[in-house]
Amino acid sequence: MTDQNKQDIENGNTLPTGSPDKDSSGQKVNPDLTFSQRKTGLRPGDIYVRKNQPYRSLFRGMRGHLVATPQSYAPVNRLAKGLRMLKTVFIGRPLFSREEVHERLSKTKALAVFGSDAISSSTYATEASLVVLMVAGNNALNVSFFIALGIAVLLSVVAFSYRQIIHAYPQGGGAYNVSQQNLGQMAGLFAGAALLIDYVMTVAVSIAAGSLAVTSALAVSGHGGWVFPASSFLNLNVILSLVFIGLITLGNLRGVRESGSIFSIPTYLFIIGLTAMLVVGIIRVFTNTLTPATTPPALPIAQPLTLWLVLRAFSAGSVAMSGTEAISNGVPAFKRPESKNAATTLTVMALLLAVFFVGVSFLSTRMSLVPGDQSIVSQVALAIFGHNAFYYIFQFATMGILVVAANTAYAGFPRLASVLAQDNFMPHSFLHRGDRLAFSTGIIFLGGLSAFLLIAFRGNVNSLIHLYAIGVFLAFSMSNTSMVVHWWRSKGEGWKTSLAINAVGAILTTGVLLVVAITKFAFGAWIVIVLVPAIVPLFLLVRAHYNRVGEQLRLIPSNIPPSTIKQFVVVPIDDVNYASLRAMSFARTICKDIVVLHIATDTDRVGKVQQKMKTYAPDLELVVVESPLRSIVPPLLTYVNALHKQHSGTFISIVLPEFITAHWWERFLHNRTAEQLTDAFKKHPDVAVILVPYRLQK
Amino acid sequence: MTDQNKQDIENGNTLPTGSPDKDSSGQKVNPDLTFSQRKTGLRPGDIYVRKNQPYRSLFRGMRGHLVATPQSYAPVNRLAKGLRMLKTVFIGRPLFSREEVHERLSKTKALAVFGSDAISSSTYATEASLVVLMVAGNNALNVSFFIALGIAVLLSVVAFSYRQIIHAYPQGGGAYNVSQQNLGQMAGLFAGAALLIDYVMTVAVSIAAGSLAVTSALAVSGHGGWVFPASSFLNLNVILSLVFIGLITLGNLRGVRESGSIFSIPTYLFIIGLTAMLVVGIIRVFTNTLTPATTPPALPIAQPLTLWLVLRAFSAGSVAMSGTEAISNGVPAFKRPESKNAATTLTVMALLLAVFFVGVSFLSTRMSLVPGDQSIVSQVALAIFGHNAFYYIFQFATMGILVVAANTAYAGFPRLASVLAQDNFMPHSFLHRGDRLAFSTGIIFLGGLSAFLLIAFRGNVNSLIHLYAIGVFLAFSMSNTSMVVHWWRSKGEGWKTSLAINAVGAILTTGVLLVVAITKFAFGAWIVIVLVPAIVPLFLLVRAHYNRVGEQLRLIPSNIPPSTIKQFVVVPIDDVNYASLRAMSFARTICKDIVVLHIATDTDRVGKVQQKMKTYAPDLELVVVESPLRSIVPPLLTYVNALHKQHSGTFISIVLPEFITAHWWERFLHNRTAEQLTDAFKKHPDVAVILVPYRLQK
Repeated sequence: MTDQNKQDIENGNTLPTGSPDKDSSGQKVNPDLTFSQRKTGLRPGDIYVRKNQPYRSLFRGMRGHLVATPQSYAPVNRLAKGLRMLKTVFIGRPLFSREEVHERLSKTKALAVFGSDAISSSTYATEASLVVLMVAGNNALNVSFFIALGIAVLLSVVAFSYRQIIHAYPQGGGAYNVSQQNLGQMAGLFAGAALLIDYVMTVAVSIAAGSLAVTSALAVSGHGGWVFPASSFLNLNVILSLVFIGLITLGNLRGVRESGSIFSIPTYLFIIGLTAMLVVGIIRVFTNTLTPATTPPALPIAQPLTLWLVLRAFSAGSVAMSGTEAISNGVPAFKRPESKNAATTLTVMALLLAVFFVGVSFLSTRMSLVPGDQSIVSQVALAIFGHNAFYYIFQFATMGILVVAANTAYAGFPRLASVLAQDNFMPHSFLHRGDRLAFSTGIIFLGGLSAFLLIAFRGNVNSLIHLYAIGVFLAFSMSNTSMVVHWWRSKGEGWKTSLAINAVGAILTTGVLLVVAITKFAFGAWIVIVLVPAIVPLFLLVRAHYNRVGEQLRLIPSNIPPSTIKQFVVVPIDDVNYASLRAMSFARTICKDIVVLHIATDTDRVGKVQQKMKTYAPDLELVVVESPLRSIVPPLLTYVNALHKQHSGTFISIVLPEFITAHWWERFLHNRTAEQLTDAFKKHPDVAVILVPYRLQK
Repeated sequence: MTDQNKQDIENGNTLPTGSPDKDSSGQKVNPDLTFSQRKTGLRPGDIYVRKNQPYRSLFRGMRGHLVATPQSYAPVNRLAKGLRMLKTVFIGRPLFSREEVHERLSKTKALAVFGSDAISSSTYATEASLVVLMVAGNNALNVSFFIALGIAVLLSVVAFSYRQIIHAYPQGGGAYNVSQQNLGQMAGLFAGAALLIDYVMTVAVSIAAGSLAVTSALAVSGHGGWVFPASSFLNLNVILSLVFIGLITLGNLRGVRESGSIFSIPTYLFIIGLTAMLVVGIIRVFTNTLTPATTPPALPIAQPLTLWLVLRAFSAGSVAMSGTEAISNGVPAFKRPESKNAATTLTVMALLLAVFFVGVSFLSTRMSLVPGDQSIVSQVALAIFGHNAFYYIFQFATMGILVVAANTAYAGFPRLASVLAQDNFMPHSFLHRGDRLAFSTGIIFLGGLSAFLLIAFRGNVNSLIHLYAIGVFLAFSMSNTSMVVHWWRSKGEGWKTSLAINAVGAILTTGVLLVVAITKFAFGAWIVIVLVPAIVPLFLLVRAHYNRVGEQLRLIPSNIPPSTIKQFVVVPIDDVNYASLRAMSFARTICKDIVVLHIATDTDRVGKVQQKMKTYAPDLELVVVESPLRSIVPPLLTYVNALHKQHSGTFISIVLPEFITAHWWERFLHNRTAEQLTDAFKKHPDVAVILVPYRLQK
């Protein structure tokens, strides 16, 4: 737009008005939505061109490059308006891409955002191994303390090896990236599949454990009547879990993602609470004043305490380590120096987790607590704090950190899915950023899957946990193995030490992976063991499709298709009336080869239709096809196919009128020919069904 | 086609071959599916025109008037083929309209076809009044005999008045026709609504009673364990009933309708069986050897035997008269002389019904039988025949006639619905004759409704029967009143006697209608009393729609729309590739005013798209609309609406490529823009969305 034009427009209403030149006034459709009008001025020979942008509230810009304003996204009809309003209430107003905020996290906040998943594992890991040991009687439960110690050692090795990854991949070293770069594409896809499953499990287990914290507190407060029988389809745990999932999903669609401040509160409340509990607990152990709130029940000895049982308990407890990898994925979100801060945070996180897990296991075995309707942590807290406000605050904090832990997966899953979609391994819809710049598809998908799992497993943490850990340790094992290859290839400064650390990590985590896979196999882990290798071919299938499509669509300059196509138009009519005449007018506009087709189910009417065609559309050829079996669509299909076979290079457009009825129910009063034809030719490469709307008045 | 042409074609392969004139050879699409080729002969100047009809196996005829052969109805894809095969197995091969058989019925056959509904009522009518009387104790049951006598008298009056209708309306005098002609349209519609409801009730009640005949026999034979508790949602009665309805519906879709021979067997088996039972029963009454098979239970007297109770029992028993009108509807189906034969058949039918009903009531009260799990007729038969083959044959015949009775409604409902549809009061789909020339829509609709009723009322005859009789007597009353008007207007020979008979009929049936409506109101009849007046406005609404549409579409020679329309084409593209180039080629073919629209969610790609457009489609104008909120459809909608507002006389076609994927699941890998646009513009009178198919290879 030139300056002169601009001035013209601005001065538009002060122009000396002459007679508007009608031929060139706004009669033309202007694709760039401008409006121009020639006016002759008062002085002979003067010509003014009036220009305007009548739609500038919807589209800014001119000359072929417009920018949609927020108004242009406004819903058109009432239903859409209602939906948009609901969306605004729950999700918030749509955000411009440039409004994205990139918050850099301090170590304190990062511990809350990335560490909550790992730290919160201490609330269910002890219980997970106790449940396995129970079958061997009360005394067997003591083994859990030693299992916790063993896992703490394992954790320190894994944490060390992840520190290596953080320094080597400051851009964020998810298992998918690291494996793909060092072990090849297939390894990357296995790691990706394992991680996706792991994220879903994190949500399901954390949410179920969070709900258990609430229902445990309800049971203690004597409101246990609320707790539906655990066997029932929708017990209170499931309902609470679904509510939590709904809230987290909505929150993430809103785009809370990594808003560190919100997540710090429950995380630190829990850290303080659990620390206080451990300190008080250990003091009371030494003063010999620690007793359980209710005497634990005597367990029948159903099995001897075999090595198999201990290994199973170890596998169950190893879920404590889930979430250890989260920090390594999120290095770029840390304040500078990113890697150093991330490594420090990782150390603190591992330390806290180890202390908490061992501590809870120690106190629990000391009191010989037995898992039951109430969670073990709840039993410990009740014994230490007593039945008072402290206990309830602690349960609330437990619930809080578990919900925050689930949120970690909500940051991870959609981001990983978008990376896989970017690489063509997942549907491209996972790339789409919704109104609030979040990867909506991934968020909704994750919410749906984990809700399904929670319902299928009736919200039971101890059943769900059997599916957990496999994915975690697969990712651990692959990341560490990748790092061994990485150091071997790079041979940078101190590569031998680094390689050694990661090699130890790789061997230990692979070993645990095997133990976990074998011991948990029959209890549900087989699902994951089947799923991971089943997902990888799906990834490949999706990519093969996108590659094939890309190849087929990519233009080769030497092979440019003709700029027009041969066309033939068929206008099926039932009668000659305003609607069918409109369809014929449309047909005349788009093509000169037209046949009007009357499928006659009633031969008595044929003459009348022929007569009317002679009167009202004498220029068009009418073909009558009698249908002695009375149906309309099959002979029409066959006719069009025969036409097409006559000359397969011709494109056939079927133009038929479609009524727009004033009321929804009126649609049932008309035949469904249009829908049936559209369906029938949906897969024909050279036939288009064009519905020319005809509005029926009220 | 001239004889010369024919000879040319026949001699085609013996033609002296010259060089084919390529310009006019089969390159053109011939709408009448002929093929012509010019060839120069060997002698200079010779020109042969080769003509052929390559598709003559699909369409016979030429020059604009083709007739579809059965092959042209062949299904195209595998799914359609499977459906067609299933249909052929269950329904049979499609029939040509000319294959319709018009069987004229002898009196014997007509009694089976039209009389079964009325005669079969005797199997449940006695029980219906006994159930009401039960509350007043065992002695009150005796009243039912006198009620039966009263209804028999009423029946004779109604039969007499229907004989009049038969003579006055030999073309078939349904209540709808007769009322409409004599009392006006609204009266006709009320009668029509009542009849439609009545047909549904006939099916439901007859089928439920037929199932009860089977379950009664099962209970007697000691296989009563099969009988689920009557209160359960799907008891054996309901399951049996649904099976019967399914079979009758299929049979009618096949077109059994009035095949008299099939229906004669169960009807006459029942007539003989019941006659035998009455004769033996009465002999045994006189020899004092008649005793019930099991001693009837003593009933507590919950209520005194009031007049109200007697009236209620009378109303309940009056269902016996349902079906009396059937013969008057079907007069044209009788052999000549139609009216006389029909009248005779009516008399025989009424006589049989009266004797059967009174007879069963007499025997039942004589033995003081009490309704229970077993039907009354079954109890009577068991007492008379004893527990032997005769009893089971009789029960089987009872089931048989009841199923045939339901079939009567399957002839009536679709025919009445088609008449109403012809008069624009019901959707025109009720006019469509399916593969076997039956009114498929009406048949399926009737089957669905009665199945719904049977499930809702748990297959219980005595609950369903409360909804019955209202419709019957409304039709009786209206027909008779109409006839009074008819005689008064026509004043033909002997009109005074005729008028008197119909007047008595009108008064009696109207009286009974009131009694039935009042006494049954609270027990479910209110549903019908609400429904009939609720259906009439629906009829009017439907007709108003059809009239409005007809008026809007009817061509007025002085107001013929222009033969072409102004068009503007928008081609939304995501990228320039083979698919979008094909859409652009299509657009060029149909219009010269085109804008190619790129909704840019990623501004980095804009330059590339612009560059490609310059290379591959420099003749087309590209408009880029940036979408800073990332969604594609809303700004596209707004843009098209703005274009249309610029000049509301212009029709806008949105041409966009649509992928035809090789596998169904691949659709999920592409966006749904096409579907969303089609949906969004479904109601826009001046926008068509044209999907240009682009087939993706495997």
